[in-house]
Order: sequence, then C-alpha cells, then structure tokens
Amino acid sequence: MNFQKILDEIYAEIQPELSRGKVADYIPALAEVKREQFAMTLTLPDGSVYSVGESTKPFSIQSISKAFTFTMALDIYSKALYERVGVEPSGNPFNSLVQLEYEHGKPRNPFINAGAIAITDALITHYRDEYKTLEAVIGFVRRISDNPEISFDSIVANSEMEHGDRNLALARLMKSFGKFENDVQQTVMTYFKHCAITMNTEELSRAMLFLAFGGTDPISGKQFITPAQAKRINAMMLTCGHYDASGEFAFHVGLPAKSGVGGGIAATVPGVMSIAVWSPGLNQYGNSHAGTLALELFTTKTGLSIF
Amino acid sequence: MNFQKILDEIYAEIQPELSRGKVADYIPALAEVKREQFAMTLTLPDGSVYSVGESTKPFSIQSISKAFTFTMALDIYSKALYERVGVEPSGNPFNSLVQLEYEHGKPRNPFINAGAIAITDALITHYRDEYKTLEAVIGFVRRISDNPEISFDSIVANSEMEHGDRNLALARLMKSFGKFENDVQQTVMTYFKHCAITMNTEELSRAMLFLAFGGTDPISGKQFITPAQAKRINAMMLTCGHYDASGEFAFHVGLPAKSGVGGGIAATVPGVMSIAVWSPGLNQYGNSHAGTLALELFTTKTGLSIF
Amino acid sequence: MNFQKILDEIYAEIQPELSRGKVADYIPALAEVKREQFAMTLTLPDGSVYSVGESTKPFSIQSISKAFTFTMALDIYSKALYERVGVEPSGNPFNSLVQLEYEHGKPRNPFINAGAIAITDALITHYRDEYKTLEAVIGFVRRISDNPEISFDSIVANSEMEHGDRNLALARLMKSFGKFENDVQQTVMTYFKHCAITMNTEELSRAMLFLAFGGTDPISGKQFITPAQAKRINAMMLTCGHYDASGEFAFHVGLPAKSGVGGGIAATVPGVMSIAVWSPGLNQYGNSHAGTLALELFTTKTGLSIF
Amino acid sequence: MNFQKILDEIYAEIQPELSRGKVADYIPALAEVKREQFAMTLTLPDGSVYSVGESTKPFSIQSISKAFTFTMALDIYSKALYERVGVEPSGNPFNSLVQLEYEHGKPRNPFINAGAIAITDALITHYRDEYKTLEAVIGFVRRISDNPEISFDSIVANSEMEHGDRNLALARLMKSFGKFENDVQQTVMTYFKHCAITMNTEELSRAMLFLAFGGTDPISGKQFITPAQAKRINAMMLTCGHYDASGEFAFHVGLPAKSGVGGGIAATVPGVMSIAVWSPGLNQYGNSHAGTLALELFTTKTGLSIF
Repeated sequence: MNFQKILDEIYAEIQPELSRGKVADYIPALAEVKREQFAMTLTLPDGSVYSVGESTKPFSIQSISKAFTFTMALDIYSKALYERVGVEPSGNPFNSLVQLEYEHGKPRNPFINAGAIAITDALITHYRDEYKTLEAVIGFVRRISDNPEISFDSIVANSEMEHGDRNLALARLMKSFGKFENDVQQTVMTYFKHCAITMNTEELSRAMLFLAFGGTDPISGKQFITPAQAKRINAMMLTCGHYDASGEFAFHVGLPAKSGVGGGIAATVPGVMSIAVWSPGLNQYGNSHAGTLALELFTTKTGLSIF
Repeated sequence: MNFQKILDEIYAEIQPELSRGKVADYIPALAEVKREQFAMTLTLPDGSVYSVGESTKPFSIQSISKAFTFTMALDIYSKALYERVGVEPSGNPFNSLVQLEYEHGKPRNPFINAGAIAITDALITHYRDEYKTLEAVIGFVRRISDNPEISFDSIVANSEMEHGDRNLALARLMKSFGKFENDVQQTVMTYFKHCAITMNTEELSRAMLFLAFGGTDPISGKQFITPAQAKRINAMMLTCGHYDASGEFAFHVGLPAKSGVGGGIAATVPGVMSIAVWSPGLNQYGNSHAGTLALELFTTKTGLSIF
Repeated sequence: MNFQKILDEIYAEIQPELSRGKVADYIPALAEVKREQFAMTLTLPDGSVYSVGESTKPFSIQSISKAFTFTMALDIYSKALYERVGVEPSGNPFNSLVQLEYEHGKPRNPFINAGAIAITDALITHYRDEYKTLEAVIGFVRRISDNPEISFDSIVANSEMEHGDRNLALARLMKSFGKFENDVQQTVMTYFKHCAITMNTEELSRAMLFLAFGGTDPISGKQFITPAQAKRINAMMLTCGHYDASGEFAFHVGLPAKSGVGGGIAATVPGVMSIAVWSPGLNQYGNSHAGTLALELFTTKTGLSIF
Repeated sequence: MNFQKILDEIYAEIQPELSRGKVADYIPALAEVKREQFAMTLTLPDGSVYSVGESTKPFSIQSISKAFTFTMALDIYSKALYERVGVEPSGNPFNSLVQLEYEHGKPRNPFINAGAIAITDALITHYRDEYKTLEAVIGFVRRISDNPEISFDSIVANSEMEHGDRNLALARLMKSFGKFENDVQQTVMTYFKHCAITMNTEELSRAMLFLAFGGTDPISGKQFITPAQAKRINAMMLTCGHYDASGEFAFHVGLPAKSGVGGGIAATVPGVMSIAVWSPGLNQYGNSHAGTLALELFTTKTGLSIF
C-alpha cells in the first residue's frame, strides 16, 4: 500500500473538520493551543515512517501517558495489579466518583482518572518516592521511543494541580477506603507531571511500536514486555481507551488506541504498524474530533482493523 | 497447526473445571441441564471442522441469539439503528433498569437485555408482526448455519416468560419513554423465543463463520452483510459480548465473542476461523466458566488473538 | 382568631400567583383544567367551616388518596406493613425506578408511586379482589368525609392507564423481586381509580379532620384509627408528603400535608383543625404552586405550626 | 405530669437495651467509651430539670453540633444560605459522595456531613478565619446553654482528622464544583473540632431550650433567633435529624431531634420542653439505640409529640 498517498488523502479530506471540536479549556496552558492543527504519523517495523501535517510539533500527551504507566505497572506487579484496578469499561465519565464509591475505592480500569492515579500510587510504592517514580516513567518513555529528549511541561503540570480538586477528591476517596498507599497531594502531582509529557506524532508513533509487535521493538530488537502483556494492553486500549466513547471508537475504527485531552491519539495495528495522530479540537467525549475521524478514514481506506 | 491436538489438550486440561461454576437456575428448563458437560468446535474457511466433547448435543443459545438479531437489525436499519440502541459497554449488570432510566429508555448496547429487546421491537416493526419476525430470525440462523433444521424450544421460551417480570419491566420502562413501538408482552415473548433457539457447537461454529470472514460465508460464498458491518459486529462482541465481564474477556482471551446463560460462547478469529464452545456451569458473571477458560487456553496455545 | 378574615387576606395576596405554575399535562383529562382557580377550606372540631374561592368545585385528588389508602393498610396490617413499604423520605423523584431497584423492590415509603401501588396490592390481597378493594377505599373516604356522594372519575382513571407505562414498570419491577401479590395490570388500574377520586376542598378538609384529632372524628365522635396510628400518618405526611420537596414544605410551612398533581393539598394542624387547599398550577416538584404559598401564608399569619 | 416518675420508668425499662447496639469505633477516642451507660434530662421553661442516669457525665456531641452551626449560619446568611445547602432529606447515607456529585457539589441538607462542612465553610467566610470561627461556635454553645465551661476535646478532633479521608474527599469534591471558599484541610479540621464539643445531658438539654421556645430562652429571656428561624430548625431536625433513619424517627417518636455518633440525642417538644438523652450503643443507622427507644417510650407515656 502507498501509505503516504493514503495519509495525503486523509489530510485533504480532514481539513473541513479542523475547525470543529473544542480545545480543552479547563486549564489555561491547554486552552491556548490553536485548534486548527493536525498531524499523523505511521511507523512500520522496518523503520519507515510516513507523516502528514505538523508531525514535529510537540503537544501534551495527557491521558496517553496512562497506557505507558499501566504498561510499567503490569510489568512490575503482574496479576497482583488487578487487586488495585479492574479491567472493565466503566460506562461512566472518566472522572466519576459515583462508580468509585459504589465499587469501594477500586477503580474500574487503569484508564479512567481514578485508575491512572491508583497506578501512579502503585508505581510510587515500587520506586520508593515520587521523584524516582517520575524519573522512571520519563526514562521508560524515552526508551520505548528511542529518544532521550522526551520530557514534561511543568507549567502544564502546575496548572493542572491548581485545578486538580476533582482528582484530589478521587485520590482522597480511595484513601478513605484504605486503597491508597502514598501521600495524596504528591501522588496526584506526580500523575499530573506524567500527563504533561510532551511529544510530537513522530515520537509518539515510535513509542507505540513495541505494543504493536508483542512487546518487542522490531527496530531495535529490545523486548520491553512479554507478548501476553502486550496483548492485554492492546485489549485494554480497545475496550477502555476513549473514556465514555470507547465502544463507539471500537465500533467505528476498530483499533486499540488511547486518546488524551491534548488532542493526541496513539494506536496500534497489531503485527503491522503503530500510528499517532494529533488535532487539538475535541468532541463531546474529550477525544480528538479530527483525530478520531482520521483513524476511521485510515481503517476504511486500508481495510486494516483488528476485526 | 494441529488443531485437533490443541482441542484434545484443552479437553484434558479443562476436566477439573467442569464441576465448578453454577448452571443457570432461574428457570426449571435450564436448571435441569447436567453441569459436567463440554464441547468445542472450530470451523475453518475450507470447511474443515475440529471438535471435542459433546459437539452434537444441542443447548439453548440464549443471549448468543442477540448477535444474530443485531446483525439482522444493523443490515435493515443501518445507521438509524444507533438512535434506538447505543454501542457502549454498560458497566452494569445485563438487566439493569438504573442505566436504562438514567439514559431515558435508550439501551446502552444491543447485548444487554434491554438492548436486545429493543432490537426485537425494531425487527417486529420491520417484519410487521411477531410471527413473521420469529420466522425471519429462525430463517436467518438457518441460512448462516446452512442448516434448515435449526429451531427453538418452546418449553424454554414459555418458562422464561413465566419468570420474565424483569424483562417485562425493562420493556415497559422503554415504552414509558416513548421508545418502544410494539406490544410489550408479545415483543418480550418473541425475544424469549429467539433466545430459546437450540444448537450444538458444530452448528453454532458454522453459523459464526460469515462473521469471521467479513460478512461472507467462505464455504458457500454467500454474502450476508458487508465487511464494514461484520467489523462492527465483531467490535460489539469484543466490547460488550460478556455482560459485565466483557473487559476481562477481552483482556484475557482477546477474541470477539458472545456468550449465553445456556453455557455457550460463540467466537471469531477474524480472517482465520470461527469457534463455538459449550459448558453449562456459569461463573459469577453468567458466562460459561469452563468455556471461558477453554478459549483462554486456545489463544494461549495458538497465539491467535486479535491483538 | 378570625379565620375568615385570614382566608380573605390569603385569597387577596395569592391572586398574582394563580397565573404561575403549570397544570399537570401528562394526561388530557388533567390538562384541560383551567389554571387560574383557587379554593381553601378550614374545618374546626366544633364543625365550623371557613372557605374562600371555589370551595365547592370538585377536582381530582390524585396522590392525596395515598394518605387514605395508607391509613387503611396501616390499620389492617399494623407493623407487618413495614415489611412491604419503608417509612423513609426517598430523596428521589416520586416515580424513580433506580431506588426501587437498589432497594430490591421494597418501596421507600407509601407516598411515592411504587409505595402507593404496593399499598393497593396489599389492600387487594386483604379484600380479595380489585372491585371489593375499590369499594372499600371509596367507602372509607365516604365515611371519613361523612359524605356518601364521594366517587371517582373513570375518564381520568382510563386516561392514566393509557399513559401508565412507568407505573406499570414499577409494579412489574416489584413483581420481579417477588414483592407483588396480585395481577400487575389490575392492581395499577385500581390504583389509578382511587387516585381519580374527585372532591372539593370542603369535602377534603372534612375528610382530614380525624387525622388532626388522633384518629377520631371530633364532630361525629367516630374513631377510625388509634392515636398512635394517627401520629404516624401525620409524621409520614410531614416527611414524605410532597414528593421531592417534602423537606422544603416542612421547612417553610411546617404542617403535615399530602399533595396531589390535581393541585390539591390536604393538611392537618394536630389538635386544632384540618385544611384543604386547591389550585391547579403546579411548581417544578408537582405540588400546587399557589396552594403551597397559601399554606405558608396561613402558618405565618396564624403562628400555627407543629414546630 | 410526674416527669421524674416517667424518667424513672423509662430508666428501668431501658436497662435490657443498654447492652445492645455498637459503640462508634471508627476512631479510638470514641471506641473506648463504655457501652452500658445511659442518661436522660428534661428541661422545662420554668427552669425545673429532671434527670436519670449519668446526666453529669460528658460525652462527645458530634453531629448534634450541626444543629448549632446551622442555627448560627441561618441567622447570619438568612435565605442566602439555601444557595449553599438544600433542606431536603437525603435518602442516602450521611457521608455519600454519590448524591453530592449528582447534585453538583451542593449538599442536600445541613445535617449530612457534606452539608455540615459547607456550613462550617460559610461560617469561616463570615468570621474571617478558622480560629475566630471555632471561638464563635463555642461561644454560641456557651451562651445557649448558659454555661461558660463548655469546651471541645482536641484528642477526639485530632483522631477524627487522622481518619478523616472521606470528609476531606467530600470537601474536595465541593471545591471541585467551585462551591467551597476556604482551605479544605483547615475547614474540615474546624468541623471536627466543633463535632468534638463535650457536654452532658443536663447541659445539652439546657442548650436546646431556646429551640423549643421559638428562639428565645424562656429562663433568661434572651432571644437568640426569631420564631420563624426556630420553626425551620425544628423542621430540619424532624426531616433530617437522624441520617438515613430520619423518617423512622419521625414515624415512631415524632419529635424534632438531632443525634450524634457519640450516642447523644437532643430533642425539643415545641412549646413544652427540651430533652437530651445519651447512651453510646448505636443502631445500624448510627443513632443511639437505647436513646431512640427512650424517646419513643417518652412520647408514648406522655402523649407529647408534635403530631
């Protein structure tokens, strides 16, 4: 297939959609981002890369970081992790306290906010303190993307913390159920920091490649996790990767993927390639409007889908 | 791969599990079924069939029929169907009224009871009356399984109706929201009838083959639905096919599949084969205990999974 | 106190409020009622009666009938009644299925719809069939109002039944929990019939007098229930008498009272008098807008309140 | 009536109940209290006082303090207070986050934990800082009880804070909805301090007297609030004073009253007297088991009730 031609077509067709959607505006640092932007990158196992749009412009990966911290925690804790977080779609908005209370402080899955904060808590327990944890997360993302430059934006992280009451409430509620091991403020701050990692679509697509190939980076040959773990992370992205629109994404796109409110979506086509797309305008569920459509166009044009 | 050998291994390994789980006992007709039974069948596109256990013994397919009625309704109504039922995992037990009320009578997806009853309601509107609808459903299942003998067990259906108050309440609630077009009693009775279809694993596996191959039966060459529709039905089975344990099934097994309280599970390995497994002992979520484990063993042994 | 003067003042002050609120419009028979109407009647133990407005014009008492059927059922079943219905305020809309499901089919109190239907079910079990039950209810209301003319409006009852899907769903849900003894359709129809009783404020005020005087009609001397029972019914009216605005009514008015969507409110001033007020325009909670304000004016002007 | 004789009878009859119920054990400071204790005091407007049991032994008034802070806040903010807290019974456990989220951070009423914390927040805004607020609360309780010795137990308050995650979560959730004005930690700490006020039944009964007499202490003649305010506070105690068993208390006892997990209950018989009762064993709803029964015996024996 001529992937560059397909990307070019998508880029042309997606233009009218770039002025739709709504940039995340709950913190100033994200609200300033210009809506009419788009980038998409495919990375193949032979190292070939295809891009369109502003594929070297960094953006805040936000919840996409949850796929990486979940990968780390699954590798560290193995099955014991399921005692901390479930693996079921939530059927509720990503930041719901109701479900967390109903389920006695055990988050439904690692991709809703409560679950991702619980994962950060588990990582801090493992790495001993929040600085070593942040270092480990950044280090892991640098290794999987084969790029020592990856870092996070502390202005975004601090801005999140200033508006972080709901996430603090989620963490505090988990603590009230005896299901939280570290300091609430510091854990949530660490969570905000890894959400504030900035990457462009070329870097993000590269970082997802090991997940598309059973846990081993096909370019470097490095194994990060086992095939069984990679399968589980892909399954989790498919069933829970897009907040309360995960079913719709699976239904219309049919690829394992994780989105973030920064407008990014990272996806895998298992055994074939990894994909990153970015466009800051969000749909009503908090997922990139043009990014979602671009992936749907991609699977329609290529016939690539897991189903 | 030597599929017969793999099935034989699974059959041996699964034996200790057959005495676990609990046979559905909410109606006498299902409660009588002996727990310690097991069958598994694989059907390949070249027509070759591999089975172990009691693969010619018929069982009540129950909720597996929802995959077939959803297929019919998606073909008839296309996108207009999404106004009647959503496509999101529910995060709640399969027969929850809470969610149905919260969402003003529109069921979350076609595989929870409310959604499947709404689909039956949509089919009755299309086929004009409940008799023609039942005829059409049975006819469709006969065609996809290439078997004119398939029928339903009216004792099971009547027994369901006698204990059908909750399903009647779901239908009545939808009607109270103006989201139900036909008679409540007759529609629920029709729903119970198509749930009471009896098949064995050989028949069921055969019936699923078109879904594993983009909507076209690779043996007969007949096209039942489009590739895009087949992709969506597989996606729906993956995200919502196992009630409140759909995430866990995707996570551990990683195949599109639909289960029923009769102990059956019908699955696809897209592009490769279709599978049916049956064992009447259910786990706490109402899915076949040994059947789920058998499919997990199968994906582990073969490496076949969509991820 | 010069009660007539107080009523005249209230009547004058309430005029601007009569064009506010919204007449119940979920059934045609209620929707036709002219909004700008008002009546208020006080009945004292010596038999003296004070009225203003259209106090001889009949209206549909609707949920006020729940106070009468609860009185009958409490007398018949005594403490055993609490196994069928609770006595707690619901904190939810009067016709919520959510709470009913959460509490496994046992209604929170006898004044929400589910609770009143459960009471009707209990009465049918006691009186053997629905005709004798309706006869008994009408007979009881005739005796407490000392008026053999009281009857119900079958057009209203039939109209309710045509739009009765939600109440049928509530009853069906209770049946699914094994907490319903009689036929769902017939029980709900009987419920709609006693809700369709028509009375004017003079009759309704008279009917409440025994509840204001410990269960014994001070005019006729007839004892209908014990003082302990009367206390409990007054308590129930205070905590649960106004759907989801019961707390507000207690807070601002401070009298035991039961309202209905026909625009009526029946109240007691224990040991002093009974009151009925009627004005069809409803506030957002389904209680008479002007009627509620008139009772607040009454307690402010007279200082009569239970607190 | 011979009140001493009635109290003596109650004291004798209640003995077998003192070994039932369960002392609050969520913090060590409360868990140490011996269960088999009982005290009851009546205070009449002429200054006469009747007691039985350990009526001079101090206990932690806990949630009873909410009646006092609500009184202060209603006096300060008047109707504007209803924008911060509602006046409806909650129908949910006293510390539910679900309802708070559903209602966008506005607590249902001032007697559930979230509501009482919101009241403390409102008081801190008014009094400028948390020290002046605590001083004002203690000062108010000293004035209404005509006793300059009343104070709080800082060991209890600190112990609460150590186990205060759920209350911190409630406060944090309100802050996330923009409905919280002061520092979360300090406000919750101030709340725990006023809950830790210690009084005996003689002091507590004395402190309630002004609420039984329209806001004016009949002994000193001092007016603390208006009759209309006193009526509203009594109404609030009746509909919401006993957590999720408020309806039951109104139904069986029929007096405005507020309970605390320290085992105290403070009640009014409007126009007649005030009552305090104490026994540390709690029923399943967190209200004093023997205390509730003693009040029920009292209303049965005396016929005193508001209904």
